[in-house]
Amino acid sequence: MSRNIILVDPLPRTLDLIMTPDVRARLEALGEVVLSEDRPMPDAEVDALLPDTVLIFGQTAMPRERLDRAPRLRAIVNVETNFLPNIDYQACNERGIPVLTPASAFAAPVAEAALGLALDLARGITAADRAFRAGEEAYGLAGNEETFRFAGAPVGIIGLGDLGRSLRELIRPFKNEVRVFDPWLPAAAIERLDCRPAGLDELLETSQVVFVFASVTAENEGFIGAREFARMPKGAAFLLMSRAAVVDFPAMLDAVRSGHIRAATDVFPVEPVPADDPVRQLSGLILSAHRTGGTRDAFYEIGAMAVADAELIMRGLPPQLCRRADPATANRLRSKPVDVS
Amino acid sequence: MSRNIILVDPLPRTLDLIMTPDVRARLEALGEVVLSEDRPMPDAEVDALLPDTVLIFGQTAMPRERLDRAPRLRAIVNVETNFLPNIDYQACNERGIPVLTPASAFAAPVAEAALGLALDLARGITAADRAFRAGEEAYGLAGNEETFRFAGAPVGIIGLGDLGRSLRELIRPFKNEVRVFDPWLPAAAIERLDCRPAGLDELLETSQVVFVFASVTAENEGFIGAREFARMPKGAAFLLMSRAAVVDFPAMLDAVRSGHIRAATDVFPVEPVPADDPVRQLSGLILSAHRTGGTRDAFYEIGAMAVADAELIMRGLPPQLCRRADPATANRLRSKPVDVS
Amino acid sequence: MSRNIILVDPLPRTLDLIMTPDVRARLEALGEVVLSEDRPMPDAEVDALLPDTVLIFGQTAMPRERLDRAPRLRAIVNVETNFLPNIDYQACNERGIPVLTPASAFAAPVAEAALGLALDLARGITAADRAFRAGEEAYGLAGNEETFRFAGAPVGIIGLGDLGRSLRELIRPFKNEVRVFDPWLPAAAIERLDCRPAGLDELLETSQVVFVFASVTAENEGFIGAREFARMPKGAAFLLMSRAAVVDFPAMLDAVRSGHIRAATDVFPVEPVPADDPVRQLSGLILSAHRTGGTRDAFYEIGAMAVADAELIMRGLPPQLCRRADPATANRLRSKPVDVS
Amino acid sequence: MSRNIILVDPLPRTLDLIMTPDVRARLEALGEVVLSEDRPMPDAEVDALLPDTVLIFGQTAMPRERLDRAPRLRAIVNVETNFLPNIDYQACNERGIPVLTPASAFAAPVAEAALGLALDLARGITAADRAFRAGEEAYGLAGNEETFRFAGAPVGIIGLGDLGRSLRELIRPFKNEVRVFDPWLPAAAIERLDCRPAGLDELLETSQVVFVFASVTAENEGFIGAREFARMPKGAAFLLMSRAAVVDFPAMLDAVRSGHIRAATDVFPVEPVPADDPVRQLSGLILSAHRTGGTRDAFYEIGAMAVADAELIMRGLPPQLCRRADPATANRLRSKPVDVS
Repeated sequence: MSRNIILVDPLPRTLDLIMTPDVRARLEALGEVVLSEDRPMPDAEVDALLPDTVLIFGQTAMPRERLDRAPRLRAIVNVETNFLPNIDYQACNERGIPVLTPASAFAAPVAEAALGLALDLARGITAADRAFRAGEEAYGLAGNEETFRFAGAPVGIIGLGDLGRSLRELIRPFKNEVRVFDPWLPAAAIERLDCRPAGLDELLETSQVVFVFASVTAENEGFIGAREFARMPKGAAFLLMSRAAVVDFPAMLDAVRSGHIRAATDVFPVEPVPADDPVRQLSGLILSAHRTGGTRDAFYEIGAMAVADAELIMRGLPPQLCRRADPATANRLRSKPVDVS
Repeated sequence: MSRNIILVDPLPRTLDLIMTPDVRARLEALGEVVLSEDRPMPDAEVDALLPDTVLIFGQTAMPRERLDRAPRLRAIVNVETNFLPNIDYQACNERGIPVLTPASAFAAPVAEAALGLALDLARGITAADRAFRAGEEAYGLAGNEETFRFAGAPVGIIGLGDLGRSLRELIRPFKNEVRVFDPWLPAAAIERLDCRPAGLDELLETSQVVFVFASVTAENEGFIGAREFARMPKGAAFLLMSRAAVVDFPAMLDAVRSGHIRAATDVFPVEPVPADDPVRQLSGLILSAHRTGGTRDAFYEIGAMAVADAELIMRGLPPQLCRRADPATANRLRSKPVDVS
Repeated sequence: MSRNIILVDPLPRTLDLIMTPDVRARLEALGEVVLSEDRPMPDAEVDALLPDTVLIFGQTAMPRERLDRAPRLRAIVNVETNFLPNIDYQACNERGIPVLTPASAFAAPVAEAALGLALDLARGITAADRAFRAGEEAYGLAGNEETFRFAGAPVGIIGLGDLGRSLRELIRPFKNEVRVFDPWLPAAAIERLDCRPAGLDELLETSQVVFVFASVTAENEGFIGAREFARMPKGAAFLLMSRAAVVDFPAMLDAVRSGHIRAATDVFPVEPVPADDPVRQLSGLILSAHRTGGTRDAFYEIGAMAVADAELIMRGLPPQLCRRADPATANRLRSKPVDVS
Repeated sequence: MSRNIILVDPLPRTLDLIMTPDVRARLEALGEVVLSEDRPMPDAEVDALLPDTVLIFGQTAMPRERLDRAPRLRAIVNVETNFLPNIDYQACNERGIPVLTPASAFAAPVAEAALGLALDLARGITAADRAFRAGEEAYGLAGNEETFRFAGAPVGIIGLGDLGRSLRELIRPFKNEVRVFDPWLPAAAIERLDCRPAGLDELLETSQVVFVFASVTAENEGFIGAREFARMPKGAAFLLMSRAAVVDFPAMLDAVRSGHIRAATDVFPVEPVPADDPVRQLSGLILSAHRTGGTRDAFYEIGAMAVADAELIMRGLPPQLCRRADPATANRLRSKPVDVS
């Protein structure tokens, strides 16, 4: 009698990182879990398991020839959350094997932190705390000379995927006019969220607060550079929440250093940031060490989404929570795999 | 023919601080503005003007005998925003002269900053920035060891007046369960805002984030002390947004110092805070120099609300934006007058 | 030792109509309830009770001389909900005795019904049901020749008091542009609710759906007449929810009869409507027999609001749920007292 | 040089029905439109066009052998909106040709009408209008003996697809507790919309208002029958908005006739309904002739969604507005094709 193998190869994640005990129990109810989390599962072990494998949780390489040896495979869930080029997405598609990512698990914590950072830049929270500790605080109106109200300020969102949408919902009570630049979306998709589609230049010129949530593709590396920062109004706030590569990072630092804009960034071209990097002394910049998404609840959400969709798939139903890789676009994304959890 | 005097005695505010030119023009359309903003209007001048005065903008002393000499007075608008004991509220009430405050102009900016501070405490924004500058940042999950998600965290609001209500609306997208302690409100008024009425102890024991917006009265000075802080769960966040006197301030600092709670405060027992006050070195506390309300737009809002209500009153209609002093309660509030704008 | 009399004179209401047993128990905990609900309380009984009366629930006449004999009276709660001219509001004000109405208890049920009626007019629900019963239904697109989508249609609200505000909140998901005509409100009060202040003509000319929630005053009887209906776009919907006297009723019926507008009304110049009134045959009009407010829960809400505020008042706190009579405006309202509950 | 054919075979729709001129112009900018709307496009014509066809708008049969002859085909958009079995979905999937439906265009108008019908059943709008015309109206509380408030009533939604989600958003201001029965969805997907997952029986037993939006599949025909109606509380409201086949229609009528429930239906087992069908006389039922979705704006939305997604696809981007057929589930749906538009 055949076994139902669930091949779990989750590095750089571990199963305990992404699943609470109850979620793990639900996973184990779906089949026989074979786990490799000390090291990537060796090829020989993968190959031996494939004939009986029904689900893969992880980033195991799955070229066409391996798919040929996995006739019972029903889904691959990438729990690292970035689609890597080691899977033949086209071949998966032909076989009706969805490749899934629960990447949207990070959307809520990133958006929450993005709003926190935006309120901080607008109202000068971190800067005022620093001044207070230095004995240089200013009270009342004098303490608000360089602040602005986030409520009602024109907002620009660059990239209206899961992160951008999550942020958009969080800021509704502030009643900002929101412009969106996202060349992958039709105007109607933007308007449904009560935002206005805008070109990049228009967005930068009119927004007091700009959030960048765009993914990196072959085409958009460094697409926000000196020319773009110059278009922002003086004193505007810029928040880089997704990938350092979408901006010309030195140009961003220059725009902050000159006092033209204020900024917050959760990402850096090289991480960890070198100890002597002058970015550490830049006063108009709030520094966040790639930590806005990586909250404990987000990792558990990855596991919860993955298992819930796996349950549906094993019942013959379509997945509902994870995003499916589209062969045409999976290859356009250029995310580096994470090397720390 | 009689004049319609508008007596403007706005110190510690000035008219330019609280009115944009267009609002000032609307004020001037209501009557003849007589202004004293270099010094409080001298008694003799006040007394000379009263017979023709229809509106007072300011904190001019108005005992009963002065009211007797102002038969045409239709309203007093306190633009400093705290009701002082230098007005005979009962006598005003008898004469149908509303005493008004546009204090709610501060609600929106304070609530916005309160949310920013709460997100900061929850997600460690200011602390992480400080660590980064010190070369001690932690990335990803390691950078989230002491953070929690604001979304979904149980929230407690102490004092559901204008400030508390404004905050309550801002946090709706975060879907927190919200408990409210406000002994001046019936349960129904709390429940209408989708909050749960709670006793102080229950609120403190169950909330991960506590916002204090309570006014100071004769009865509630220092009502949150060591006993109360001890009831809060370890790691909870405490935000003091209204008046320092409602808490036992040293007890709050002790609770932060011991690591039991994290906190943010916009108010201090003595302001400006002495240069050598050890509060400046307390790492678990975000310091804000009584600056969350005093934004430029809030001051302009004071003037806009005051003039809009004055326009209604001059048309024989009830005011709609400012709050009316209630003789019974105006005397219970113990706000210190501001001495800086 | 003195008694604390609560004088309850609630006709045309009865205590059982407006209070659930638990609310009534709370009322009884506040003092000694003396009730007259078979007939209005006789003058002699009122006069005998006044010296010990602390609260009045009802519409008992309270001229100045009676107030003089009620030194311990702390509040009057009008449970019929319309301020009548049998109270000396000025004298109450002088004594610090608030006269309260829980009239806003009707706001939620009226607004809910108003939205139901508006959706009905827009989508043709009642008309389509009638056609179906007559064997004349039309399917699909053919059944929508005279319908329009409520979502996104320009809406006009005439009178933004409790009723109008309640409706405004209910329609938020439909994302209508909302214009408001309310001469008692400053622009800022309208804009805070994300509506646009408008003149009456502008509102009528631009709105696809017009809701009338205005109270009747000496000045506004019949202020929406033939001239005004003519300004509405053909096919627009008109909902009369407050008082028949604010419109020229025959002119409204003419505008419906001619096919220029469609309408719904909850009120009529004479109620009950005569059996042979031709209004009963008018096909473009939805007929509602003054029943949108009078739901069981609304009557209980009256009692609940009244008692909750009475509890606050007996504790020396200001009322929070009921509206206070303003001497200046109470006299301008011209509501007829209800003669049926 | 090759042509880019857009094969448009839209019956039972026509192009004018689903596209405003500006949308049609955008369609024509994508390629050479070849249209057959007087009759389904003849096979020979289809076959001749396929080698140069890049987009199909319509329900043209596309078995594998035809797909083999359409090497440049990039998408099929089903503008009738129901997936029919005349397409080889698996073969499309293998070739990376998405089969799309803009069916969600109907979600907003159906949900709006569903709320209108629910408010009508709750508050008795149509019934009261009918009584008024018959001279049997009851005023005030007497007119509310059989009504209930929709606000706060427990709601059940059966089927949380596009229609159910749209309704869920519309009713947010009413603050109902909402239970959802949808066996195709994980609990998390339901909870994200602030609803509670429930079994069918629990939902029926606890809900005052039940909305049915479920699609018909091989497994669920008639799944709501006499046993299920009996579980509903007396006086509850039942709204059938999707397909008649999901309920045992005679059992529904019996439950209405007996007075156990009140109901509204937009669908019937046979349409048009026979002239002598006794359903036309049933007083507790609101009759709607399959007209809640078919509004003019909904048909235009079909075209707008179809063209917007086609534009993305022609740019090499994934569609964003239409739903993609999933080979595994497209075959499970049993919608009858529409035969009237």
